[in-house]
Amino acid sequence: MTIRLTDLGKAVLETEYAVRGPIVARAGELEKHGREIIYCNIGNPQSLGQKALTWNRQILALCEYPALLDLAPGTFPTDVVETAKAILAGTRHGLGAYSESRGVRFIREAVAEFILERDHIGVDPDAIFLTDGASKGVQTILRLLLSGPQDGIMVPIPQYPLYSATITLYEGRMVPYYLDEANGWKLSRPMLEASLAQAKAEGTRVKAICVINPGNPTGAVLDEANIAMVIDFAKAHGLSILADEVYQENIYLPGDEFVSFAKVLHQVEAKEVSLFSFHSCSKGFLGECGVRGGYFEYRHVPEDVAAQILKLQSVSLCANLAGQVATYAMVRPPKPGMPSHARYAAEKGAILETLKQRAILLAEGLNRIEGISCNEIAGAMYAFPSITLPAGRTDFDYAMALLEATGICVVPGSGFGQAEGTAHFRTTILPPTDKIQKVVDALGEFHRNFR
Amino acid sequence: MTIRLTDLGKAVLETEYAVRGPIVARAGELEKHGREIIYCNIGNPQSLGQKALTWNRQILALCEYPALLDLAPGTFPTDVVETAKAILAGTRHGLGAYSESRGVRFIREAVAEFILERDHIGVDPDAIFLTDGASKGVQTILRLLLSGPQDGIMVPIPQYPLYSATITLYEGRMVPYYLDEANGWKLSRPMLEASLAQAKAEGTRVKAICVINPGNPTGAVLDEANIAMVIDFAKAHGLSILADEVYQENIYLPGDEFVSFAKVLHQVEAKEVSLFSFHSCSKGFLGECGVRGGYFEYRHVPEDVAAQILKLQSVSLCANLAGQVATYAMVRPPKPGMPSHARYAAEKGAILETLKQRAILLAEGLNRIEGISCNEIAGAMYAFPSITLPAGRTDFDYAMALLEATGICVVPGSGFGQAEGTAHFRTTILPPTDKIQKVVDALGEFHRNFR
Repeated sequence: MTIRLTDLGKAVLETEYAVRGPIVARAGELEKHGREIIYCNIGNPQSLGQKALTWNRQILALCEYPALLDLAPGTFPTDVVETAKAILAGTRHGLGAYSESRGVRFIREAVAEFILERDHIGVDPDAIFLTDGASKGVQTILRLLLSGPQDGIMVPIPQYPLYSATITLYEGRMVPYYLDEANGWKLSRPMLEASLAQAKAEGTRVKAICVINPGNPTGAVLDEANIAMVIDFAKAHGLSILADEVYQENIYLPGDEFVSFAKVLHQVEAKEVSLFSFHSCSKGFLGECGVRGGYFEYRHVPEDVAAQILKLQSVSLCANLAGQVATYAMVRPPKPGMPSHARYAAEKGAILETLKQRAILLAEGLNRIEGISCNEIAGAMYAFPSITLPAGRTDFDYAMALLEATGICVVPGSGFGQAEGTAHFRTTILPPTDKIQKVVDALGEFHRNFR
Repeated sequence: MTIRLTDLGKAVLETEYAVRGPIVARAGELEKHGREIIYCNIGNPQSLGQKALTWNRQILALCEYPALLDLAPGTFPTDVVETAKAILAGTRHGLGAYSESRGVRFIREAVAEFILERDHIGVDPDAIFLTDGASKGVQTILRLLLSGPQDGIMVPIPQYPLYSATITLYEGRMVPYYLDEANGWKLSRPMLEASLAQAKAEGTRVKAICVINPGNPTGAVLDEANIAMVIDFAKAHGLSILADEVYQENIYLPGDEFVSFAKVLHQVEAKEVSLFSFHSCSKGFLGECGVRGGYFEYRHVPEDVAAQILKLQSVSLCANLAGQVATYAMVRPPKPGMPSHARYAAEKGAILETLKQRAILLAEGLNRIEGISCNEIAGAMYAFPSITLPAGRTDFDYAMALLEATGICVVPGSGFGQAEGTAHFRTTILPPTDKIQKVVDALGEFHRNFR
């Protein structure tokens, strides 16, 4: 055949994405043969029974088929009707036309107001791009930053493999910096400096540092001081920052709160540090993964570079309009006093409460198993426990054997990166609460046998 | 700032996408200042008043918010209700969960049946990938094929600039082959051979040939013999084929019909030629550009390469689910006898009839202008007339001056490529019929003055 494996490039061949790798493929096969699989490999809440928020879906339905306003009067709350009408007017041509490359301006203005309310700082709607989920935004910015094979991007270890996969695909260098497992997976300045120094010694031109906050897969939540430290580090070394903040609503410990990089950047007045921040409809309490909605916003980016971002985005025309609408619904929830507010608050509260319970249940359960040790799950949707393995066995072996023995599908720690000599796996906290206990019990039994 | 233009790579800087380039940016400015702009730069039918098909939107609304089945009983025709229920069952988790990386299998099976009915040949649903519009599919396959800076892809001139932009971004070489304007923009074997020979002489390793049928921007429709010639050429030289068939429903001349590359490949039994075919919800009579739905299918691709395609797709998780649903609605229209059939047929017929009228009106009108010459518009959605220019003026100058003088926004031929010494522009045929005459009149007057 005219296309052969040997013709493909190194970049393609070396790209890895463990979240949907061979273990997940094997799970699919087992499922085809009638096996019950508990998919803990991917943060896909609605596949495990989480319901979509009514607010989102009512707005989406009306925007898709505005004739419903006349055909089914009284079916939708008045605030949904008004919101859908406003969005449709904002799009000018409905959901069937390409929008501007950046996304519908009316929706970008709503995102700007959301950020203003959250951070008390303004943002130019033209510095916001609506994207098909956060992943596409991250890929655009990495494409922008990587100018040649000597360019490197600092990525936390463990990391979400979108970063390693995209850097490999764009033929840049991943510069790992380690998160401190013994210290709740926090970042430390010495570890950042050590990582950068080593990269420089290897001839890498480091362009940027990625931070995932709350952390995936670690669940760590950064405080203001930690963020200020990263910004100071970036400033000292002339790096740009990619802040992956898609789990900003997923904070579980009392006293913790989400602080955005944008807010701290503003406070410390680091005007020379370029920042790209990412958000998504897929996580938080919405869990609208299938809609592929999200945005990125940037700060301190010169106009000529901004023009290049716009150009890159324009080749892909625009993000899908349903995703843009879902982004609007995310940043503009019903306010107290509006007809949809009570239902929205109840749905949101129930989901977040459930996630919190599961985070506690799972971490406690894992820690009761001898040979498994798990940090508190402070945020996001995952546990990344450390496991002790018999000599000669890898965490890949472990995850595959776990799948075969129990039907539980997790991702080996090697897919995210881990300190030399350690082994982990990542599991989501998403199975229904009654199943979490089952998962923990099955894991415990499996782990004893595997050792 | 930590990101500067001088840090960006050649690939990013050199990428060009004229369909949304500086002339369109200028149009946006003029519009902000109250000027009426007629956007003829992009195939975006619903932005120019084309209505979405009711079938599509009813299905989408129900899938987004299935509670409507109970809340608004009797609002939707029974076939829409059944279709939406079948799709929802097929997705298993509704529109809010990531699907498999290839897309929902139930929808891929429907695409496979659509191809079977169209071409009378079978296709494996696992060789079909649902994508965010055809563009994303093209980008995935070009990423796969381009393994290094010496790799080249044959692209027609004039071409749709997605190809040139993506090849530049992936640092491959565009190998132009000229379409024969004097012969209705058809492909000719000698022109293909000449192009390939020159590329080889320059040290380019040519991997594939792209064909756009019906042509964008040319509007040419290839017949079976022409397609068989391309396949024979690909076979003789070990090339893969990318068949961009997004305009397959846009055929305007009596006697012409769309013939797929897949069908001819099967007929001539060219089992060594790897083929990638692309389709989209954005064009045809649907014009659902905003939904970002589409698919690609491949033939004669070895399993190890297919695994690489799946891996690349998995990094992006999956195409948006609303787009996947729209793809289902596209490949599974209501059949005669079903409640929605009459309305669907009427809406479809009216749109296609209108497009046909506009294609004739526009080509005839352009040909009446002295100094403008336009081939018959046999298919797709564009005219690409040749224009004579005063010495020293470019087609970019022409398009910019046209915009300033008349508010008509077209794209200069240089954005698509054209034979040395010729000048063109691309305009869509999409403005409402009463505006087409105005466009032609305004163009005529402008052209006389510009000369």
